[in-house]
Amino acid sequence: MKILVLGGDGYLGWPTALHLSALGHHVTVVDNLVRREYDAEMGVDSLVPIAPLEERVARWDDVSRRRIDVRIGNLTDAAFTYAVVAECAPDAIVHFGEQRSAPYSMIDREHAVYTQVNNVVGTLNLMYAIAEINPDIHLVKLGTMGEYGYPDIDIEEGFIEITHKGRTDVLPYPKQPGSFYHLSKVHDSANIMFACRVWGLRSTDLNQGIVYGQSTPESDLDPVLATRFDYDGVFGTVLNRFCVQAVMGHPLTVYGAGGQTRGMLNIRDTLACVTLALETPAAPGEFRVFNQFTESFSVREMAQMVKRVSSKPVQIAEGLHNPRVEHEEHYFHAANTKLLDLGLEPHLLTDEVIAGMLELVERHKDRVDVDAIAPTVQWRASASTLKTANASSDASFLVV
Amino acid sequence: MKILVLGGDGYLGWPTALHLSALGHHVTVVDNLVRREYDAEMGVDSLVPIAPLEERVARWDDVSRRRIDVRIGNLTDAAFTYAVVAECAPDAIVHFGEQRSAPYSMIDREHAVYTQVNNVVGTLNLMYAIAEINPDIHLVKLGTMGEYGYPDIDIEEGFIEITHKGRTDVLPYPKQPGSFYHLSKVHDSANIMFACRVWGLRSTDLNQGIVYGQSTPESDLDPVLATRFDYDGVFGTVLNRFCVQAVMGHPLTVYGAGGQTRGMLNIRDTLACVTLALETPAAPGEFRVFNQFTESFSVREMAQMVKRVSSKPVQIAEGLHNPRVEHEEHYFHAANTKLLDLGLEPHLLTDEVIAGMLELVERHKDRVDVDAIAPTVQWRASASTLKTANASSDASFLVV
Repeated sequence: MKILVLGGDGYLGWPTALHLSALGHHVTVVDNLVRREYDAEMGVDSLVPIAPLEERVARWDDVSRRRIDVRIGNLTDAAFTYAVVAECAPDAIVHFGEQRSAPYSMIDREHAVYTQVNNVVGTLNLMYAIAEINPDIHLVKLGTMGEYGYPDIDIEEGFIEITHKGRTDVLPYPKQPGSFYHLSKVHDSANIMFACRVWGLRSTDLNQGIVYGQSTPESDLDPVLATRFDYDGVFGTVLNRFCVQAVMGHPLTVYGAGGQTRGMLNIRDTLACVTLALETPAAPGEFRVFNQFTESFSVREMAQMVKRVSSKPVQIAEGLHNPRVEHEEHYFHAANTKLLDLGLEPHLLTDEVIAGMLELVERHKDRVDVDAIAPTVQWRASASTLKTANASSDASFLVV
Repeated sequence: MKILVLGGDGYLGWPTALHLSALGHHVTVVDNLVRREYDAEMGVDSLVPIAPLEERVARWDDVSRRRIDVRIGNLTDAAFTYAVVAECAPDAIVHFGEQRSAPYSMIDREHAVYTQVNNVVGTLNLMYAIAEINPDIHLVKLGTMGEYGYPDIDIEEGFIEITHKGRTDVLPYPKQPGSFYHLSKVHDSANIMFACRVWGLRSTDLNQGIVYGQSTPESDLDPVLATRFDYDGVFGTVLNRFCVQAVMGHPLTVYGAGGQTRGMLNIRDTLACVTLALETPAAPGEFRVFNQFTESFSVREMAQMVKRVSSKPVQIAEGLHNPRVEHEEHYFHAANTKLLDLGLEPHLLTDEVIAGMLELVERHKDRVDVDAIAPTVQWRASASTLKTANASSDASFLVV
């Protein structure tokens, strides 16, 4: 299959590109390299060093004797997007090419507008390019479980049957996204669902949980092939942060009661799910939604797991001020059977997996910037002070 | 009250500005005059001549001895939006300032992207300006009944109680918008609902039906104060088109079976509803949704009403190719009690109202361009030929 991986220089895009290439697909990575610019803007960096894209691709060629093509450009530039789709003539497009940090989108007006325009316009251009060049292309789009928010009923996969005043219909599941980033994904999903209806496009929307881990069969082959491990307050995710704090001898920072429950998955399952979606494409005109996570944990449970597995003594600091506006104890029961039905065999969050993450941090601990962990973006303020503006002592995140 | 009317040069914005001014409010019209540019782009014009904005405002001063202030600029320009909100210090903002034509948004990629960026970014800038300058400002935002689409269950006002697998929650009503324009309104509503939640903004979302009529107490005072009457295939609405066709001796063009049912309201009720929303503002943090229509009719019923009222013989041409992707017979039962509860006394679509519209067309029949009525934008195509490109004979809309 000829596959475009949009955002193929990012945390998940890169190992997905490697994985699809290893499976024998003809992969083209499309990226504008902006993920590297966000690091510069925020004054943070991946725990694991990230090689330049050309070096990554050359090393993959050396290691695997397989070629990954690269196109550098911006999806919001319609001429670029049309040219890539026309010239590469893909059978499928995996779309990771969006700004994907909730805190980044909440920094201030500029970042909110940037996130929504970048994500929505890039995806609109892509939809039109597919419709006008080859409507048969299967669009596999990355969304997030956060699109649903935290309703007090079970979360279904994209749609829900509602009986109301004696009548019944199956309707799009109501969404309650929790940041301008999450909202951009909801906007995208609505736009794509419409394009499937009016133009007969085929698309799979993967509502992904929080991904942890950094090890995949292909990226482990050589340090130059490694993907990112983000632990900072803007692009990092909770389990990564806890592992870094544990290794650095810091209390694990649990916001509020820590009862926030999230769907999670191992990075290897991201690759497996994308592959399963590609191998069994949506039908023409079909907009299907898969919830892509394998387990769910509360923040408190994750802290306790890291504490249990860590060989060093670990303190858990609960009750810290929560920068987000969210319920800290809530119902969470979400369906995730569609990918299992396609054959997904989950990699679960075992003690060994956490031990592997702790070991990774230990190996790179000289690169850790503990100040980068504190949350600097406040949901309740329309403009937040960036971490870079006045990063100070470790104590800062204990008194936020 | 100090009130900004965004889009105050448009079809509904202008008579709303007049009405609020007549009630004694201090009104500032904010507009970028782009509605006039769309006419030039499409090669169409309002049936009723529209005076320049400065002339309208001067005449209103003459007639009423009341001043309406004007600020010309674009809401997507954040500096402009912040300056207007800061300098005018409004108590409330009525937001009509968006691209509001579904066919216009469906012309091609450029128009779809323009519509979503213009509407979403303008509204984001406005939300941030309110949050940072005065979160107490009441934002009255115009949405559309078309946001809901046509589900097979009753449509509620913004939210619905869902019981699912033994649990119950009140969630945002699922939306199935039918064009990139309608999608932009759904995106806006989701963004504003979020801003109310995290920043405590107060907002009323008016999901308006199709507005008919052109006569209001204030705009009738002088021809220079008149508002638009659009009947063309891009900006015109169905009842206006039927009235123009009846007067010009053309068959009324009903798409498909004509069973498409729409919530409708008289332009005078738009003014009344906006006024009621302003007089009883949303509470801080509240995002409330009112369905703003008074009656519902199928397209077929509207054609029959025009035929019955017209003094000339009228033919109805059913079964024409529908340019939109929609069910032509569908369930439609939508709640609209919240504005009635606030005291709305509807102006219904009586024979006299239709007779008045026919008379208006008769008076301006020398300005009618019958070629402009044909639908030129096709939902199933990602790019449509504009009316201006090759407008030909009357026959064109009988064979589309």
